[in-house]
Amino acid sequence: MSRITLDELNQADASGFVTALGDIFEHAPWVAQAVLAMRPFPTLAGLFDAMKAAVLAVGIDQRLALIKQHPDLADKAARAGQLTAESMAEQSSIGFDRLSEAEYATFHHLNNAYRAKFGIPFIVCVRRHMKDSILRQYELRLQNDTASEHAAALDEIFRIAALRLDQRVSAPDRLKVNGRLSTHVLDTSLGRPARDVAIELVEVARSGDARLIKRAVTNADGRTDQPLIAERPIPIGSYELRFNIGDYFARQGVAVVAGTFFDVVPVRFVVAEPEAEYHVPLLMTPWSYSTYRGS
Amino acid sequence: MSRITLDELNQADASGFVTALGDIFEHAPWVAQAVLAMRPFPTLAGLFDAMKAAVLAVGIDQRLALIKQHPDLADKAARAGQLTAESMAEQSSIGFDRLSEAEYATFHHLNNAYRAKFGIPFIVCVRRHMKDSILRQYELRLQNDTASEHAAALDEIFRIAALRLDQRVSAPDRLKVNGRLSTHVLDTSLGRPARDVAIELVEVARSGDARLIKRAVTNADGRTDQPLIAERPIPIGSYELRFNIGDYFARQGVAVVAGTFFDVVPVRFVVAEPEAEYHVPLLMTPWSYSTYRGS
Amino acid sequence: MSRITLDELNQADASGFVTALGDIFEHAPWVAQAVLAMRPFPTLAGLFDAMKAAVLAVGIDQRLALIKQHPDLADKAARAGQLTAESMAEQSSIGFDRLSEAEYATFHHLNNAYRAKFGIPFIVCVRRHMKDSILRQYELRLQNDTASEHAAALDEIFRIAALRLDQRVSAPDRLKVNGRLSTHVLDTSLGRPARDVAIELVEVARSGDARLIKRAVTNADGRTDQPLIAERPIPIGSYELRFNIGDYFARQGVAVVAGTFFDVVPVRFVVAEPEAEYHVPLLMTPWSYSTYRGS
Amino acid sequence: MSRITLDELNQADASGFVTALGDIFEHAPWVAQAVLAMRPFPTLAGLFDAMKAAVLAVGIDQRLALIKQHPDLADKAARAGQLTAESMAEQSSIGFDRLSEAEYATFHHLNNAYRAKFGIPFIVCVRRHMKDSILRQYELRLQNDTASEHAAALDEIFRIAALRLDQRVSAPDRLKVNGRLSTHVLDTSLGRPARDVAIELVEVARSGDARLIKRAVTNADGRTDQPLIAERPIPIGSYELRFNIGDYFARQGVAVVAGTFFDVVPVRFVVAEPEAEYHVPLLMTPWSYSTYRGS
Repeated sequence: MSRITLDELNQADASGFVTALGDIFEHAPWVAQAVLAMRPFPTLAGLFDAMKAAVLAVGIDQRLALIKQHPDLADKAARAGQLTAESMAEQSSIGFDRLSEAEYATFHHLNNAYRAKFGIPFIVCVRRHMKDSILRQYELRLQNDTASEHAAALDEIFRIAALRLDQRVSAPDRLKVNGRLSTHVLDTSLGRPARDVAIELVEVARSGDARLIKRAVTNADGRTDQPLIAERPIPIGSYELRFNIGDYFARQGVAVVAGTFFDVVPVRFVVAEPEAEYHVPLLMTPWSYSTYRGS
Repeated sequence: MSRITLDELNQADASGFVTALGDIFEHAPWVAQAVLAMRPFPTLAGLFDAMKAAVLAVGIDQRLALIKQHPDLADKAARAGQLTAESMAEQSSIGFDRLSEAEYATFHHLNNAYRAKFGIPFIVCVRRHMKDSILRQYELRLQNDTASEHAAALDEIFRIAALRLDQRVSAPDRLKVNGRLSTHVLDTSLGRPARDVAIELVEVARSGDARLIKRAVTNADGRTDQPLIAERPIPIGSYELRFNIGDYFARQGVAVVAGTFFDVVPVRFVVAEPEAEYHVPLLMTPWSYSTYRGS
Repeated sequence: MSRITLDELNQADASGFVTALGDIFEHAPWVAQAVLAMRPFPTLAGLFDAMKAAVLAVGIDQRLALIKQHPDLADKAARAGQLTAESMAEQSSIGFDRLSEAEYATFHHLNNAYRAKFGIPFIVCVRRHMKDSILRQYELRLQNDTASEHAAALDEIFRIAALRLDQRVSAPDRLKVNGRLSTHVLDTSLGRPARDVAIELVEVARSGDARLIKRAVTNADGRTDQPLIAERPIPIGSYELRFNIGDYFARQGVAVVAGTFFDVVPVRFVVAEPEAEYHVPLLMTPWSYSTYRGS
Repeated sequence: MSRITLDELNQADASGFVTALGDIFEHAPWVAQAVLAMRPFPTLAGLFDAMKAAVLAVGIDQRLALIKQHPDLADKAARAGQLTAESMAEQSSIGFDRLSEAEYATFHHLNNAYRAKFGIPFIVCVRRHMKDSILRQYELRLQNDTASEHAAALDEIFRIAALRLDQRVSAPDRLKVNGRLSTHVLDTSLGRPARDVAIELVEVARSGDARLIKRAVTNADGRTDQPLIAERPIPIGSYELRFNIGDYFARQGVAVVAGTFFDVVPVRFVVAEPEAEYHVPLLMTPWSYSTYRGS
């Protein structure tokens, strides 16, 4: 669905407003309906808070109904056609559209175990996760009691809704739903930014599997033109930045005979807060480097 | 063959001396014979130089014969039983006893191409190499002219002989045939050596394959009790040291909830000089680290 | 004199224009007069280039006259009342209004030696220098021939004029006459910017004398609210940044008994390019730090 | 007094033994006498422990008498001739033989205040201190009660005695009375130790005064041939190591025109434990450096 401005939403007729925001909460246009009369909303945060309050204001039965309208995660049958467009896109973003049969079976088993214990589908805001961290979520949350899990499901629903709303509506403000990953390469043997250093960003699964997410090259300021990750949460998990400094130093004429001491520098780190800013610089010479979580 | 002291060699009868050193040069006990009368040798370096001089003193036909007595590298037929014990051990050290059929075929092809061009077997001191760097040797050396390659073959023979001699004979001095790889882990957030950090040393092939060479744990001084590699040349190639600092910092009570920012720190570097000392320390905090070629 | 906009200059009458820019070149309103008809100037750089071209277009006698209208540096008699307001401010900025008698004598002697050799006053853009580097300028330039020095004098006059023009006129563009010195303090033991670190910036003379230039405190981002030096050239010379990290770490509860390992961290560096950006960060823990010329 | 071996002490006659060790405790040969019969001592630590036990075994009056036999610190009158040779040497080592009149007056005043409150002279093991830290000792200890101060005085007497004994007697073991300060300079732009870097070690007083303690130059391994401080406690206080890396890099051909970014790198640090090992390396390039408390 295309983006709409907050102004347009404030001025839309009732039907237009509800159509535009009817799927922010899964199968629950009544949430949009409930905040219709509170317009105009000066900020997106105000609109979101109102929708959240509307959900919290209804009786427990209606809230439970909202929870239960969510699909199972990585459910093969559901994929055949019952998913909303939003859910489909979200689940695909994490690779749930291309699982192996064994993985589908694992999720099927976990979903059933969860539903058997708590009476609701397992809900998680998948854009904040890698596959490993989703599996860890099942593990942790299956240990909770039912009340905690009903609350947890609602928290995840709010996260999903906030992400959908932030992507749908252009407004003067943003919801705090996105993280940012950036880097900076400095050649401290020359005292200046390192230009044209090729960088790969890779997701590292617990199994050791690595999946390339992005390639980039540093510019004259030693940065990438675009952040490595932006405008979305950074999925919880392990990453590796791979800096090809061997080629860089070879171009500077360092050690052309025997090659350089470092070739590709891997910097492996863990993202625990998907909405945070992660700045991971590399200060390097042909014979040394350092890295740190910067700001 | 068991080690012998330089003193014993100096006092041995002729037969004992030649028996002890007859296989330092492949199928060439005449080299030991040639230096017999020059005893006593006060140093191992003196003995080696004398043997080397003896090889260089003979006519070109005899030198060529010496060269030709070397087996083909990674030759499947040869492995069936014609290799000297020394050659067998050397080739096994680099994994040539467990190649795939495709790899045997590659080496067979390269050996034939080399022999066709230069009229001698391809000789290389395998203990100084990984498989990748051996293949690179073929590639480079196939571009030479015959005179250069005869000289190169002799150089490699001297390297092989020096390594064999240094391992065979205990003496007050050592030949410069061994390298050394060591590390040191410092916790700069506490200003002291990091104890009980688990370290893995891995060989990284050009194909991306990683082969574990050694596991070690740092002691109270932040070092490993033994160097990671010592008493042998360090094979030319790419390595990765993997420092498990996540576990270390978790034991210090850092970030027990969300985990640490770094978990396993991979430090990948290239060894180009097998006889050199490589000291690769890690200075680290929970949020930063640096590494360098130290001394 | 108060600032004026480029627009106002473009629309001023002839007399207003010449009055506003008459002292950009010392005692030489004719330069402003010469560019009057070329208005409007879309950029400040265009205006400056035109004035520079006007100086280069006149005969050598008039250029020499322009050179000779400059006062001697640090001339005690001149200070009694003959200096232009601009010259007075410039010379005061470097402390030439508070020299010792011995220093006045030194400059007097150097000025005379220079004038005797080249027939012109010694001209230098003082805002780009510390006292030490001015003395070094005399030393170097006294070795030149007359033609080089006439050219050097003109270069300095253009530097002086560019600085005066950039300060006098508000325009969409700026002349490249200013440098910038900034810092950034990161606590790599916590992985975040270090807040409330007191910093002193000190000029260090060759004699060892240190003169405090600025005090600042880091904000929540580990930076100072304002750059340490900006909107002016950074005088050529040695500086020391003094970071009071002892107090910072004491506030974090580090080592309250015996004190911290580092107390005040001095970072001493040399500025050679007054118009450049110098970013000098400090990455630190209670037991380690690193610094570098950043970007 | 010249050194003597533990063996010689074990075999000496009673008079020889007591003469050799009679001044280990100030004016108290009875301590040596008391341990005479316990010979032979296999270790120096054993001998020292025995002497310490002998002091603790006597009645409180005799212990108080021992305390009272110590001279006032920095006492001008005492210096005229009543100090033991040992006390004279110790007090001179810290500069108490060259105080200003004002400083003598300060100490005189503090000594009197201390004696008035506690009835004993102020005793401190001066070799463990700089002047600043001695003054800090008065300040802290004047706040104690009498019992604590009698114990503190005895502790200091044991420290003094241990140092005297360790210097007097050669033995297979050493008492833990000495610290060690060392450095190591690595050129991480070249990946090797930095040779011929001139280093100054300076004591920095709270007043800002700096006193040169030692000059040294790095050798081929980037270390100084001798530790900067060894075979004595490191006086408590602030130090600055000044590494002349500008000259070093200029010799490597770095930045011969405008000079290097760093010239003299000052590393200022605080010693709180006189008996500890302080290793303070410098890892540097022409544009960056880092330092830390190493091991």
